[in-house]
Amino acid sequence: MEPLSSQAALDWVIDALAMELTDPASGPLSRRLYLGLRERIQAGRLAPGSRLPSSRRLARELCLGRNTVLAALEQLVAEGFLETRPGAGTFVADLPRLAGASLESGTPSEQASMPASAAPKTREVSLSSRGTRLLGYSPGPNARPGVFTPGLPALDRFPQALWQRLMRRHLHRAPTEWLGYQAQGGVPALREALCDYLRLSRSVRCRPEQILIVQGAQQGFELIARLLTDPGDRAWVEEPGYGGAKACFEAAGLELHAVPVDDEGLRVVADLPAPRLIQVTPSHQYPSGVTMTLGRRLALLEAAERHGAWIVEDDYDSEFRYGQRPIAALQGLDDGGRVLYVGTFSKVLYPGLRLGYVVLPEALVDPCRRANARLHREGQYVVQSALAEFIAAGHFSRHVRRMRDCYRERQARLRDALAPAVSAGLKLSEGQAGMHLVAWLDDHTTEAALVARGIEHDIGLSPLSTYYLTPPGRPGLVLGYAGASEEEIARAGGWLCQEWLALRAASEPDARV
Amino acid sequence: MEPLSSQAALDWVIDALAMELTDPASGPLSRRLYLGLRERIQAGRLAPGSRLPSSRRLARELCLGRNTVLAALEQLVAEGFLETRPGAGTFVADLPRLAGASLESGTPSEQASMPASAAPKTREVSLSSRGTRLLGYSPGPNARPGVFTPGLPALDRFPQALWQRLMRRHLHRAPTEWLGYQAQGGVPALREALCDYLRLSRSVRCRPEQILIVQGAQQGFELIARLLTDPGDRAWVEEPGYGGAKACFEAAGLELHAVPVDDEGLRVVADLPAPRLIQVTPSHQYPSGVTMTLGRRLALLEAAERHGAWIVEDDYDSEFRYGQRPIAALQGLDDGGRVLYVGTFSKVLYPGLRLGYVVLPEALVDPCRRANARLHREGQYVVQSALAEFIAAGHFSRHVRRMRDCYRERQARLRDALAPAVSAGLKLSEGQAGMHLVAWLDDHTTEAALVARGIEHDIGLSPLSTYYLTPPGRPGLVLGYAGASEEEIARAGGWLCQEWLALRAASEPDARV
Repeated sequence: MEPLSSQAALDWVIDALAMELTDPASGPLSRRLYLGLRERIQAGRLAPGSRLPSSRRLARELCLGRNTVLAALEQLVAEGFLETRPGAGTFVADLPRLAGASLESGTPSEQASMPASAAPKTREVSLSSRGTRLLGYSPGPNARPGVFTPGLPALDRFPQALWQRLMRRHLHRAPTEWLGYQAQGGVPALREALCDYLRLSRSVRCRPEQILIVQGAQQGFELIARLLTDPGDRAWVEEPGYGGAKACFEAAGLELHAVPVDDEGLRVVADLPAPRLIQVTPSHQYPSGVTMTLGRRLALLEAAERHGAWIVEDDYDSEFRYGQRPIAALQGLDDGGRVLYVGTFSKVLYPGLRLGYVVLPEALVDPCRRANARLHREGQYVVQSALAEFIAAGHFSRHVRRMRDCYRERQARLRDALAPAVSAGLKLSEGQAGMHLVAWLDDHTTEAALVARGIEHDIGLSPLSTYYLTPPGRPGLVLGYAGASEEEIARAGGWLCQEWLALRAASEPDARV
Repeated sequence: MEPLSSQAALDWVIDALAMELTDPASGPLSRRLYLGLRERIQAGRLAPGSRLPSSRRLARELCLGRNTVLAALEQLVAEGFLETRPGAGTFVADLPRLAGASLESGTPSEQASMPASAAPKTREVSLSSRGTRLLGYSPGPNARPGVFTPGLPALDRFPQALWQRLMRRHLHRAPTEWLGYQAQGGVPALREALCDYLRLSRSVRCRPEQILIVQGAQQGFELIARLLTDPGDRAWVEEPGYGGAKACFEAAGLELHAVPVDDEGLRVVADLPAPRLIQVTPSHQYPSGVTMTLGRRLALLEAAERHGAWIVEDDYDSEFRYGQRPIAALQGLDDGGRVLYVGTFSKVLYPGLRLGYVVLPEALVDPCRRANARLHREGQYVVQSALAEFIAAGHFSRHVRRMRDCYRERQARLRDALAPAVSAGLKLSEGQAGMHLVAWLDDHTTEAALVARGIEHDIGLSPLSTYYLTPPGRPGLVLGYAGASEEEIARAGGWLCQEWLALRAASEPDARV
């Protein structure tokens, strides 16, 4: 591992040496330089084989006489810490490391010379109980995106050149104070452009001041949970529902209560235990794809009012609707100031952008902005500024339209590929919106078998049952189709279709007779 | 508020209209267009006075015959929703808004037409109890940086042109997958460069794989608290200590226990209640400026081992030491794998960058990386990549050296300005490192009086007593000197000196005799 220019490594060493040399208590200069270098060679912090700067340069950098430097270097060569190679210079010798040997005397500079390679011994790890639950929602150690990864947008279709041009321009223009700590709730131009977009396209009722820019929707969930709930409070979550939000609420110490989703969305029945927080995806339920009906929305708002609970409306991908009217946000129906509307740019632009937003009820604007500035800090103002132009100049709506066509096409490819299975009884969700389809399966055995076969073929499949809080959940697969090319989708879809048909045939031998 | 190009606003409206028009259930096309436009005019989402596109363009964008469009527009003009101005085009009329009028029928498209200006009524806000405590650590609603803001670096000295060049290059080079969800723990090149830097300059013992890049040190604290503690667990915090870390631990539901800091650092005495987490700033205690002695460090490590606790070492500004050896990190002394070393680029580069890191014990690498990918997501890989080059090419160490000189100079200006007060008995901290000095005051009355006078003169002063968990705390002022120019520091320092002398004179009338 040699990622540093040896220049940078030497800079640091010289720098540290220069400071040590200012300490008059530690003897003559030549001796101090000798000790400082020896220490670092022993500790492996000057890599074996690396070339030292010339004595002339060292003398200049350390503000020492050249003879002082030469005396130290000669001593080190004599003792074997350095080697001279004729015509090439002075090099660090390849020595066995002396683990911990220099720690005993205990002076700070000698503490600093412990071998870098002596990693502390590993110990049995004891996570917290919420930490352990958290990991249950977290990707496996080797998880990586694949053809069917839900929620991954078409990165290959993102207008990179345009975006880079905007970024360059806004980098150049950025006022110096944007480098500092900010607590405005985000770049004003972005909040204004976003406000117009949300009003026009999502029927969200807000002023720009109500918008808080956060580093991704997850940060929005976290802020809300911490500011509005205490450990032990109850949160209603959709069953099935989004793991990211559930992970945040677990992390906040909340008690999760699963509320079933049917084909009209979250169903508030009479005997549910009172919540403090309610998480919903009314525009396009995640992962089932259901749109919450007006009746259910009104019932939910009424329940929130009755319980004095807050509603977190997670509107993650409603930009992508196919041949359907845009659905007005729940927030737009809320006269009680109980809805916090959370949005993200991860789907419409790209996940690595790490920008999302929360539209806050008036009463929460000041506390949320202050708590966010304290807990998370604000930043990325240049990116926010570039994004504001991207929206206001119309690139955003154009990109949404293009992606809508692209995803419609990709969904059609997936449906085509799965058509033989569908003819044989495989059920798919309606797919009138969004970036994924759900394939409902008959049993958990099939779900597990398909996931296992997927691992063999390097095709990651997301089992629907893991989206349920209460086992066993309903069996199925959540099939993202937005992030892969039509060819990849057709190929992986064809494979999945064959696997499903083969499993079906194996489980119903009579059908083949 | 008209930040959008009217082009963008129209794009969205046309877009939504186009989708509505695909629904054959809602009558003839001309009627549907008429209703769609009327709805949006009533709702104020087409601003009064804004010009409509030509009927030709509308027809093209909506894929309608021009006569269909003309029929709809003529009807709207006839009803007074639109106005034609000779030679200028067709404009949206200025109508009174019909609040809620169109909600009654309850179809989704009519829900969408609620007036944007009808903000939900505000209600009495009920924060959680931890939320209320959190706000106690949060900046006031009108807080903004001033001459003495602690922790603000010299933004005017940041090498903007160089950084922008690096950013442009890395933007251009970024692989497409960096746009997506990542779970590698950060860009490998950055973790490698950082690892070398930490080993060489901070005596941290680690491999690049142990480094987790986070969006600021605060995110590191949050991750640690959630993964390693449960609500109700106890955390030791330094008294006085850093509000940002305390806010994170409060947010995580922890019970904070203040452990006093004296002139050797945090003092572990026998009867302290067992913690699960310990937060320390051993290199340069925040805010007192004390360097923790080797004896205290070893005692702390022993206590952590005995209690089975984790230590969070917050090394926030130790790059800036004046005429002193760099102090080896506590992490480098830890053989038990109990120390999590948290660092930030907010001080060395700039706060708006939002990048920090945690060096994890081996046993925590996998769980922390997975939990972080779930809770916070990774991102900003382009910035990380640019930063890797900034470090590896030596710009980082050069910038640190320049800033060290700059801050030494700025501290000297502040000392000069306060010299008359110091001669008269004002006590200042040693200031051998970092970006702020502490002025110790004799009583809380003086502290409050100076802060109040500061507000009058638009000079923000940070009262030391607010850094204490347990009131009343020790009176004093935390005086950042890194973020303002020498002239500003001299001026504000001179003002402060006079104020202090005046208060002193007023409280000791005999002294003037």
